[in-house]
Amino acid sequence: MPVKLSAPQASSLLPVKGVQLGFAQAHVRKPNRKDVLVMTLAENSRVAGVFTLNRFCAAPVILCKEYLAQTKGIRALLVNTGCANAGTGDDGLNRAKQSCEALGGLLGLQANQILPFSTGVILEPLPVDRVIAGMPAAIENLKEDNWLNAAEAIMTTDIVAKGTSRQIQLGGKTVTITGISKGSGMIHPNMATMLGYIATDAAVSQAALEAIIQYTVNKSFNCITVDGDTSTNDSLIMMATNLAGNVEIVEDSVDYALLRDTLTEVAIELACAIVRDGEGATKFMTVTVEGGKDEAECRKVAYAIAHSPLIKTAFFASDPNLGRILAAIGYAGIDDLDVNSMELYLGNVLVAEKGGRASSYKEEQGAAIMKESDILVRVVLNRGKQNVTIWTCDFSYDYVKINADYRS
Amino acid sequence: MPVKLSAPQASSLLPVKGVQLGFAQAHVRKPNRKDVLVMTLAENSRVAGVFTLNRFCAAPVILCKEYLAQTKGIRALLVNTGCANAGTGDDGLNRAKQSCEALGGLLGLQANQILPFSTGVILEPLPVDRVIAGMPAAIENLKEDNWLNAAEAIMTTDIVAKGTSRQIQLGGKTVTITGISKGSGMIHPNMATMLGYIATDAAVSQAALEAIIQYTVNKSFNCITVDGDTSTNDSLIMMATNLAGNVEIVEDSVDYALLRDTLTEVAIELACAIVRDGEGATKFMTVTVEGGKDEAECRKVAYAIAHSPLIKTAFFASDPNLGRILAAIGYAGIDDLDVNSMELYLGNVLVAEKGGRASSYKEEQGAAIMKESDILVRVVLNRGKQNVTIWTCDFSYDYVKINADYRS
Repeated sequence: MPVKLSAPQASSLLPVKGVQLGFAQAHVRKPNRKDVLVMTLAENSRVAGVFTLNRFCAAPVILCKEYLAQTKGIRALLVNTGCANAGTGDDGLNRAKQSCEALGGLLGLQANQILPFSTGVILEPLPVDRVIAGMPAAIENLKEDNWLNAAEAIMTTDIVAKGTSRQIQLGGKTVTITGISKGSGMIHPNMATMLGYIATDAAVSQAALEAIIQYTVNKSFNCITVDGDTSTNDSLIMMATNLAGNVEIVEDSVDYALLRDTLTEVAIELACAIVRDGEGATKFMTVTVEGGKDEAECRKVAYAIAHSPLIKTAFFASDPNLGRILAAIGYAGIDDLDVNSMELYLGNVLVAEKGGRASSYKEEQGAAIMKESDILVRVVLNRGKQNVTIWTCDFSYDYVKINADYRS
Repeated sequence: MPVKLSAPQASSLLPVKGVQLGFAQAHVRKPNRKDVLVMTLAENSRVAGVFTLNRFCAAPVILCKEYLAQTKGIRALLVNTGCANAGTGDDGLNRAKQSCEALGGLLGLQANQILPFSTGVILEPLPVDRVIAGMPAAIENLKEDNWLNAAEAIMTTDIVAKGTSRQIQLGGKTVTITGISKGSGMIHPNMATMLGYIATDAAVSQAALEAIIQYTVNKSFNCITVDGDTSTNDSLIMMATNLAGNVEIVEDSVDYALLRDTLTEVAIELACAIVRDGEGATKFMTVTVEGGKDEAECRKVAYAIAHSPLIKTAFFASDPNLGRILAAIGYAGIDDLDVNSMELYLGNVLVAEKGGRASSYKEEQGAAIMKESDILVRVVLNRGKQNVTIWTCDFSYDYVKINADYRS
């Protein structure tokens, strides 16, 4: 079960002016589930995206990048689950294009005004006929108040739907932000088998929106890991419909930081929800590495801890087998690390210092913290001033079960 | 259960002239198990070692390096299981020294003529009194024909003891090589929670022995991974007692390559045995990456595949979910990889080419190969002439169980 996470109430996901959402049960892979989502955007919306760095990126990712480069007039998004359309070569690209053409025909748009997304099994052809067959139903139920259905329509092995909203005032105007995401294995920075869609009705310049999405992704989706696998299909899209009536936000607007930080807050909540619903997760771990010479070395240490199956299984067992954390710090790749000058904390308890167990540490303290479902691992390197925080989860029987059974 | 691996017969592990082995049940952590090993070497033996690169390397590793630098007169090895004496600071170093002094006292040697090794739980103090109390019994049963007992005495979560022997002719003299190793989690290049001891009675110069161990480790123990964790205690020791009567082998001897390659063969067998007995392993996978520009990029791809929990769980399930392998190749970190020009084979079956599934590939072919217990994954990058082969195992419920329960 997800760690301290439940699906949002439909009423808590606020409509964003100019964004309509519709879904269909298109039987892409399995019957009787929402597996196609159509999202439409008002004219003059701005759209920015960040995509997987995987060299085997999926056909829809290739098309998204192409279309975003071609036009500023993106007007719709099309998402299917059940098939990733990745590792599918030219044929996959053709099928993705076909789906955009078909939706364009139905909505009166050019194919390149539609961004396509797929998630699911890799290396299998997209059943594009079924996706297309599902479009009329999705268009039929397009409405602004449909975010929870949309969040459900993009789920794969996710147990709960993920979404959140915020409202802020920009120059006296109320601005709404709503985002949804899906995980839940293959979660890794740069990025995850994750799809994330964050929409606002704020007026924002294209340049500002692109600066914000880069900032946001580095503080959120690029700071989570479930199993270290970087997917072929990861995509985060930020959309601004320009309908809130505020003065357009540019990078030196007074309110730029407020908008950026609120969008980032939403992105962090969506990213952490993916970890809390990580495949088989029973614990949510925050790993903070402080006092590094640079961010890169902090990340190395944080990810060495977050990726270690030995550590993840110890957390699953609530076993304060903390030597495994020291071992991970030791092999993280900081060649001149002085293990005698660093400290390791579990929650607020000092566990290790001077190269060994802290004399004040008692096993009962560690055992008590390990029983909690939200656990902080804090490493203080004492080498510099940089800090990094990432989020991960434990490794359970169910992770193996889910991933051994995923296709069956 | 180990994958196609059973313990060697006692009679198949050949005595090596000048090497005696004795064990004790010292109750380091648990009662009624062999947990202390003493190995003695004839005078004028040569010894070389390769150790973990983990910055949190264990106290005995620090001492081994120190003693090997101080003297060419190493005469004994002392191994305990149950406690790694790692993450134990100055106190751990003192305890390791104490154990060498005690054994030196009993054997009439200086402390620095004895190399200490520990394996087991990290971050806990070595119960050195018990190790010392076990020494007289171990010395009492020292004999040349004791390799299987020695292999058993160094086991931790290993299910079967690991050892092998070879005999070759060097200049008309019969030379014997016998090696033992232990795994079985935290197995990763550079290196593993692995201990390996390979002895020969050949006469070999110190320089040649050191060249051989470097060559050997890069072809064997640095090519295996179970879970990507690099331990604090990894050590491989190569010993040559100089009693076979052959003319001393130096680096340009005619027989140098024969000796080197035979030692390497033994090391590969010991390394692969560790993988076959990997924690919870049900499949043994050979991952070969061919046609890379350099060895480093081949290794990146091989380890991306070998470390992916998604791939490892798919192998556990015998599910030819091969898109996960493409995804791993894609995120391995070759920035200019052209996914359209590479090929993926499972066994001898071409699975993917031109960026997608091979038109000749049928799921039944993949399914048939996935049912086997020894599986070859072959990636042809078509970028250059370098090849790398590594070995790994799958990821099962039992891996989680073993590591969640390890301390309890």
